Amino acid sequence: MSQYRVLIDANDEKGLVHKISTVFVNSDLNILSNSEFVDKDNNKFFMRSVVDGNIDKKELEDALESVLPDSATVRVIEPKKKNIVIMATKELHALGDILIRHESGELEANILAVVSNYDKLESLVSKFDIQYITISHENLERPEHEKKIIDAIDSFDDVDYIVLAKYMRILTPGFVEHYEDKIINIHHSFLPAFIGANPYKQAYDRGVKIIGATSHFVNNNLDEGPIISQEVKNVDHAYGWKDMQRSGRDVEKIVLSRALKLALEDRIFVYANKTVIF
Amino acid sequence: MSQYRVLIDANDEKGLVHKISTVFVNSDLNILSNSEFVDKDNNKFFMRSVVDGNIDKKELEDALESVLPDSATVRVIEPKKKNIVIMATKELHALGDILIRHESGELEANILAVVSNYDKLESLVSKFDIQYITISHENLERPEHEKKIIDAIDSFDDVDYIVLAKYMRILTPGFVEHYEDKIINIHHSFLPAFIGANPYKQAYDRGVKIIGATSHFVNNNLDEGPIISQEVKNVDHAYGWKDMQRSGRDVEKIVLSRALKLALEDRIFVYANKTVIF
Amino acid sequence: MSQYRVLIDANDEKGLVHKISTVFVNSDLNILSNSEFVDKDNNKFFMRSVVDGNIDKKELEDALESVLPDSATVRVIEPKKKNIVIMATKELHALGDILIRHESGELEANILAVVSNYDKLESLVSKFDIQYITISHENLERPEHEKKIIDAIDSFDDVDYIVLAKYMRILTPGFVEHYEDKIINIHHSFLPAFIGANPYKQAYDRGVKIIGATSHFVNNNLDEGPIISQEVKNVDHAYGWKDMQRSGRDVEKIVLSRALKLALEDRIFVYANKTVIF
Amino acid sequence: MSQYRVLIDANDEKGLVHKISTVFVNSDLNILSNSEFVDKDNNKFFMRSVVDGNIDKKELEDALESVLPDSATVRVIEPKKKNIVIMATKELHALGDILIRHESGELEANILAVVSNYDKLESLVSKFDIQYITISHENLERPEHEKKIIDAIDSFDDVDYIVLAKYMRILTPGFVEHYEDKIINIHHSFLPAFIGANPYKQAYDRGVKIIGATSHFVNNNLDEGPIISQEVKNVDHAYGWKDMQRSGRDVEKIVLSRALKLALEDRIFVYANKTVIF
Repeated sequence: MSQYRVLIDANDEKGLVHKISTVFVNSDLNILSNSEFVDKDNNKFFMRSVVDGNIDKKELEDALESVLPDSATVRVIEPKKKNIVIMATKELHALGDILIRHESGELEANILAVVSNYDKLESLVSKFDIQYITISHENLERPEHEKKIIDAIDSFDDVDYIVLAKYMRILTPGFVEHYEDKIINIHHSFLPAFIGANPYKQAYDRGVKIIGATSHFVNNNLDEGPIISQEVKNVDHAYGWKDMQRSGRDVEKIVLSRALKLALEDRIFVYANKTVIF
Repeated sequence: MSQYRVLIDANDEKGLVHKISTVFVNSDLNILSNSEFVDKDNNKFFMRSVVDGNIDKKELEDALESVLPDSATVRVIEPKKKNIVIMATKELHALGDILIRHESGELEANILAVVSNYDKLESLVSKFDIQYITISHENLERPEHEKKIIDAIDSFDDVDYIVLAKYMRILTPGFVEHYEDKIINIHHSFLPAFIGANPYKQAYDRGVKIIGATSHFVNNNLDEGPIISQEVKNVDHAYGWKDMQRSGRDVEKIVLSRALKLALEDRIFVYANKTVIF
Repeated sequence: MSQYRVLIDANDEKGLVHKISTVFVNSDLNILSNSEFVDKDNNKFFMRSVVDGNIDKKELEDALESVLPDSATVRVIEPKKKNIVIMATKELHALGDILIRHESGELEANILAVVSNYDKLESLVSKFDIQYITISHENLERPEHEKKIIDAIDSFDDVDYIVLAKYMRILTPGFVEHYEDKIINIHHSFLPAFIGANPYKQAYDRGVKIIGATSHFVNNNLDEGPIISQEVKNVDHAYGWKDMQRSGRDVEKIVLSRALKLALEDRIFVYANKTVIF
Repeated sequence: MSQYRVLIDANDEKGLVHKISTVFVNSDLNILSNSEFVDKDNNKFFMRSVVDGNIDKKELEDALESVLPDSATVRVIEPKKKNIVIMATKELHALGDILIRHESGELEANILAVVSNYDKLESLVSKFDIQYITISHENLERPEHEKKIIDAIDSFDDVDYIVLAKYMRILTPGFVEHYEDKIINIHHSFLPAFIGANPYKQAYDRGVKIIGATSHFVNNNLDEGPIISQEVKNVDHAYGWKDMQRSGRDVEKIVLSRALKLALEDRIFVYANKTVIF
């Protein structure tokens, strides 16, 4: 018996659920859970099912594709640990939260390495027997620096996601394209507010009463890619911007770990620079 | 063309979605939205679909029942305004919130009457041209008092829901049974904490840092019936119990109105003293 | 015995609390509550005390001013109902919430009138025996239209606050200056995100997972004045922009009423385009 | 120049702030921050100031005590790292969160040791060069087991706080008394709901729509001591009790770390089985 996650999107039309459920019945599959969503504005259908039974992955994919319209994308995924590389700079909290979750066995992931432009976090990471790769950006043009990072990452087989755990450098379009839909970032503000540098300082200057953090896929859209998760925290006049920053870290780490978990469990569809999450 | 809400629950078994979607396809129905849930512990399947097409209600019900197992309950509901009676005592906020929403056309409901054991709210209610019925409890045994209320409510045809908008008297099992699964209450605490009288005083005495409110169906279970919605609010040491009460009113009214909306839109399944909400 | 709210701000220096508390002791005043804040970045001291005793307002003000530095602003305020005018357009929820709170006696305010550019809300407002003034903007230049509104508002004595309960027209700098620090607005987004028109549409297009509302004073700063209160609500991919709008209304009305309450209770200091709230 | 945290509580009476601020002025102290609260029901005054200047701790304490009534408790505290011992059982998340915060330098604490009744967490703790003491409870009566723990803890000098990071055994009154007001616990429910064993199972069975966690001091009161902090998280019918448990862990760890931070910064007053937190 195998368990599969089946993710299907297609242009919406009558009868899709019937077609899909017919394949499931004919394949003698048991539906463990099932979520659907139709975006009427864009006439787009999304479905995620978890099924189990005696059929191989390829067979099931073929069976589904044979009944579905050409617009459909079918993914049949066997649940297993995905491979991730984490990128960080100097801050501990978001990386540390992922390391602890990894240690506890909560994450469906193998951490292949942590890549950083500083060696500051090496002592922490090495405690967990995870490879730490320092690639300093000093005296390097951005593309040169990124080339070295890409070489390091691509030395591993099958990297599923790259997690930016407060990696504080802007990525070039080239880097982003190289890992399309694979880079998950945490932005330390309630996007789209405070897109630029030092968002806590911006939030403080604006006198907001709530701060937030946003996890999102990185793409080359101007405003920072499809949002996966957001979370907020009340603040008041007594918070200086460093208090906001300190206090915001708890939100940041929770939101990044939540996004990573959703990605690892294949719960996210990306389209129209947005996400559908089941 | 008619639009229907189709609510089905059944003991779970393989192929239910397929059977249901086959009926939808054969009836040439378009699925506008679709939600499913399987409670594995209790082996129970729940589904709510919104469909439209050219078929009458009875036909669709029959078609679904003919393919589904005996354990299935099928409800095909035409969206239309439901009839509600509101019961209140002296407090304005929860009642007022419903009146304003009703006035704005936001609620799928006709308010047939407001019944109260005091005349305090009459002036407010009559502003909205809604019948106000004062049934004082003074000098009456509880069953006598309730008998009068039942007579008043049952003088209307087809009362779908009775909404307790801070009706501050305990209902007898007889009253509750008479309106089984039809009474929606707001309890001014985060149930199951603080079940008894004056929950804000209890919360204050316990020194909690968060207060809440809970909307639920009323049944004769000891701990107050299936929860529909809950909401909370931070408090601190500076809140006396009356501050908590005042501040809690905003939570109460939002939570009651939210529960009412869910009920009016036929989004709630009740079972095992819990709710499944789509 | 009189009760006063004493609000003091000044450039910070050693001994301010001592000077103020000496005045209180010498005046035989009892401190009922006391809040202080020092903004170190701007070297600014803020204090709000509630005191009671046998002294008149003028005497207490003079005593405080005589010991405090020139930079100090002293306000001694007797708690009493403030006069407010509400401006609205067509939407019911924020206005309705204030009317119900007013009716319940919860607000320390007299509502002098509701001014609108449409007559749509007249039937609601007149239920509450409050004057409704329709001033259509049709065929009028903006300054002409505002001139008529100013005339209507200024026909009342002592208007303390003007509350924009979803008044959907942009105010000219002239109007804003005429009522400096007196206009409280609700913006239907989590400022500073989505400043322009139709923020729910913007939020939907951006694919946010949280929506919000912001109450603020209106001034002629580009980004909409000092924030008083903010509140948020989770949404997901299933929310179209109209669902966000509908769902956001509950946040809007709560946030506007909360800001109004803070203003009526003299709890807000405004400086540097921000607020200090006790 | 030294910085002090001054914490004072006393029966409330006129002039306390004046007396205290006179001492501060006479000692040429600069007030960096100041918070007061009067509990009118219990006629109790609380004040926490942060001051700096040239005076020693003892002198300042004496000066304050000499002007304050007998009911006053005065604590003058020099900010420095406090000594803590953590107790845990098998769960990683709350302990891990504290270890990472400690590693990042965010906590004003030295972790002297982690004491556990299992060796399961030893590998994690030893990564951080912190002593791990396994004291198995097997074949031991509860008092015997606790005696061994007390011996281990008391082998360290000056233990300020004992942090129960999901220590899953009930403590005897003797143990609790031995460390009066020093034990901080996380309870994995929104207290006072679900006090007993397996609160997530209880919450699931009750069908709640919100789960929570509560950090509190442990004393011998029946309902688990003064609450320091609470936090909640929305759940729905799709959460089994293990999903609630998994999801609740994020709330638990944040709430425990928040309570610890408040304690380490001397921000908590305990009285009447409640807390005042500045």
